[in-house]
Amino acid sequence: MNQIRIGIFGYGNLGKGVECAAAQLDDVSLRVVFTRRDPDSIHLATSSVPVVSASEVSQWKNKIDVLIICGGSAKDLPTMTPELAKSFCVVDSFDTHAKIPQHFDAVDAAAAQGEKLALIACGWDPGLFSLARIMGESILPHGNTYTFWGKGVSQGHSDAIRHVPGVVDACQYTIPSDTVLNAVLNHEADTFTAQQMHTRECFVVLAPGADPELVEKEIVTMPNYFAGYKTTVHFISQEEFDRNHRSFPHGGTVIRNGNNGKALENHSTIQYSLTLDSNPEFTSAVLVAYARAVYRMHKRGRNGCISVFDVAPADLSPRSAQELRAQLL
Amino acid sequence: MNQIRIGIFGYGNLGKGVECAAAQLDDVSLRVVFTRRDPDSIHLATSSVPVVSASEVSQWKNKIDVLIICGGSAKDLPTMTPELAKSFCVVDSFDTHAKIPQHFDAVDAAAAQGEKLALIACGWDPGLFSLARIMGESILPHGNTYTFWGKGVSQGHSDAIRHVPGVVDACQYTIPSDTVLNAVLNHEADTFTAQQMHTRECFVVLAPGADPELVEKEIVTMPNYFAGYKTTVHFISQEEFDRNHRSFPHGGTVIRNGNNGKALENHSTIQYSLTLDSNPEFTSAVLVAYARAVYRMHKRGRNGCISVFDVAPADLSPRSAQELRAQLL
Repeated sequence: MNQIRIGIFGYGNLGKGVECAAAQLDDVSLRVVFTRRDPDSIHLATSSVPVVSASEVSQWKNKIDVLIICGGSAKDLPTMTPELAKSFCVVDSFDTHAKIPQHFDAVDAAAAQGEKLALIACGWDPGLFSLARIMGESILPHGNTYTFWGKGVSQGHSDAIRHVPGVVDACQYTIPSDTVLNAVLNHEADTFTAQQMHTRECFVVLAPGADPELVEKEIVTMPNYFAGYKTTVHFISQEEFDRNHRSFPHGGTVIRNGNNGKALENHSTIQYSLTLDSNPEFTSAVLVAYARAVYRMHKRGRNGCISVFDVAPADLSPRSAQELRAQLL
Repeated sequence: MNQIRIGIFGYGNLGKGVECAAAQLDDVSLRVVFTRRDPDSIHLATSSVPVVSASEVSQWKNKIDVLIICGGSAKDLPTMTPELAKSFCVVDSFDTHAKIPQHFDAVDAAAAQGEKLALIACGWDPGLFSLARIMGESILPHGNTYTFWGKGVSQGHSDAIRHVPGVVDACQYTIPSDTVLNAVLNHEADTFTAQQMHTRECFVVLAPGADPELVEKEIVTMPNYFAGYKTTVHFISQEEFDRNHRSFPHGGTVIRNGNNGKALENHSTIQYSLTLDSNPEFTSAVLVAYARAVYRMHKRGRNGCISVFDVAPADLSPRSAQELRAQLL
C-alpha cells in the first residue's frame, strides 16, 4: 500500500494525539516530528521517527505528504500555518471562530502560491460540529440550531482562573443545562443564551494564605468568562487536583430543530453528540482523517485553502468507493 | 437569483414531501410533477405547476435541472432511475441496501451515456445514517458502529401484517431497546443482534370473525420479519386505528464507539440521532438538499452516478462559501 507520509509540527497534547492516531492506521505513516524545543528533550510516545528542530522544516519539503500543525490558535497558527502552507500540504485546528475568515484568506494566498492544499479549522468545534450545523440547516431550512458544549474542560477558562492572584492551579468544567437541552429536544422554545444553556464548575488550588472568598468573587464576576453564568467554585488540595482533574474530557451536542410539511406542522430533530474521554486525542483523530482527504484532493489537483465543508466524506475513508457503497451506504 | 428548476416523478407521500420542502426554499423552483396515474386525478398540496403524464417526461428534458424520482425501491427505481438518468440529472431514494451496488452500476452507465449526474440511495438510511457510519469509522478506526431504528413505523412490516388472512389494517412500530442503547453508550459490550437491539409493536384491525390468537401467532412467527424479535400485537378498532396510527413517525440513532490514546485507553462516542414526526417529509427534505448539490456538481462537469459519500457539505447549502465559513464553521 502507498502510505500517506505525515509530519507533526509541535509536540504538545495535540501532537501526541496525532502520533497515537496515526499508529492505528495502515495507510498513514508518521515520518517526522518538529519541535521548537530542544529535539533531544522530546521523547515520543510510540514511534521512533526523528524529532527535528522546527527551524529545519524546509529540508523535509519532499519527504512528507501532509504536515499536521499542532500549535495554539492565539499565538502560533496565525503566522505558522500560512508560512508552512507555502511548502507543505497542511491541516490545522485553528479554533478562534471570529478570526476564521482572515486566517482562511492568509492561508489561501500562501497555499495557492506554493501550489499546496491547506485545510484549516479542523477538529470537532470547529470541525464536526460545523458539519452538524451546515447539514442541519441545509436539510431543515426552517428551524433553529443549538450548540451545547460539555461536560468538559475548557482550557481557556482554566487558564483565566490560573491568572487570578492567589490561585496555584485550576480546572474549569463547562456543563450543559439538562433542562434547556430537554426543552430544545421537546421543541419547547426558540432561543436561549449561552449563559442559560451552560453552567460552569471550577476546581481551584489556593496558594497558602490566599483568601478563598476574594478568589471566588474574582472568578465568578470575571467579564467574558464567568459573569452572567451560574458558576460554582470548589477549593481543593493539590493532591486531589492531581488525582481527579488532570485529564481532558469534553464533548457536546449540536441540535437542529426544524419543521416539515405543508403548513410546517411536523417537527424534525437532528441531534449530533460527542462524549470524549480525551479532547486532544479525539481532535487529533479528526485531523488525521482529514489529512487523508487533503492528500487525495491535492493529488487530484486542488490547491489553496479549504475547510471541512469542502471535503466529500468518501475522501476521509481508507476504503474504496465500491466497498463504501456495498458496506456503509 | 438563478433558481434550480426541479421536477417530481411520482406523487405519493414522498413526492408530496418534496413539493412541501421545495416550497420552503428561495433557490429551488418546482416546475412540474409527473404521474403514472391520470394527471387530472392529482391535486397538488401547495403549488399550481403542471401535473403531466409520466409518458411525456422526455418533452421536459431541457425545462428542468434536476428530477427527483419518488418511486418505490422494490419495483420502480431499478428500471425507472437508469431510464430517466439518460435524459435528466436525478436523485432517488433507493433503499434496498443489498442491491445498491448493482443499482449504482446501472444508473452510472445510463447517466454517463447521457452526460447527466445521478445521486442514488439518498434520504436518511441510506443517506444521513450512511454519513454517520462513514464519518464514525474514518475518525475512530478502532471501534464499533451500531444502527438503531425507531421508534417508528416500518412500511415493510406493516405491509407484511396486512397480508395475513383476517387482517383488515395494520401498523408496525420498530422500537429500539433502551437497555441495549444505554449499554452501547456506556461502552459495555461489543456486539448485539438486530433482534436484541429492537422490539416490534403491532396494531391490527381484524376482519369480522377472524381469530385473534391465530392471527397473532401468524404474525409473531413470520420468518424474516418477526421471528426472533420480541413482538407484541394489539388488536384495535378501525376507528382507533384511523385516529392514532395514520402518520409516519420515525427516527433512529447511529453510534460509533471508538478508542483513542497510546494504549487505546480512552473512549470516544459519536452519536447521531433523528426524531421525525414525518418520515416521508424529512426524507424529501434530504432529497431536495442533495438535488441542489447535484445541480452544482453537474454544472462543474461531473457526470455518472454518485452517492452522499461523494458530496461536499458546502454543496448542500444555499449560502456562499464566505458566509458558511464566517457563520457556521
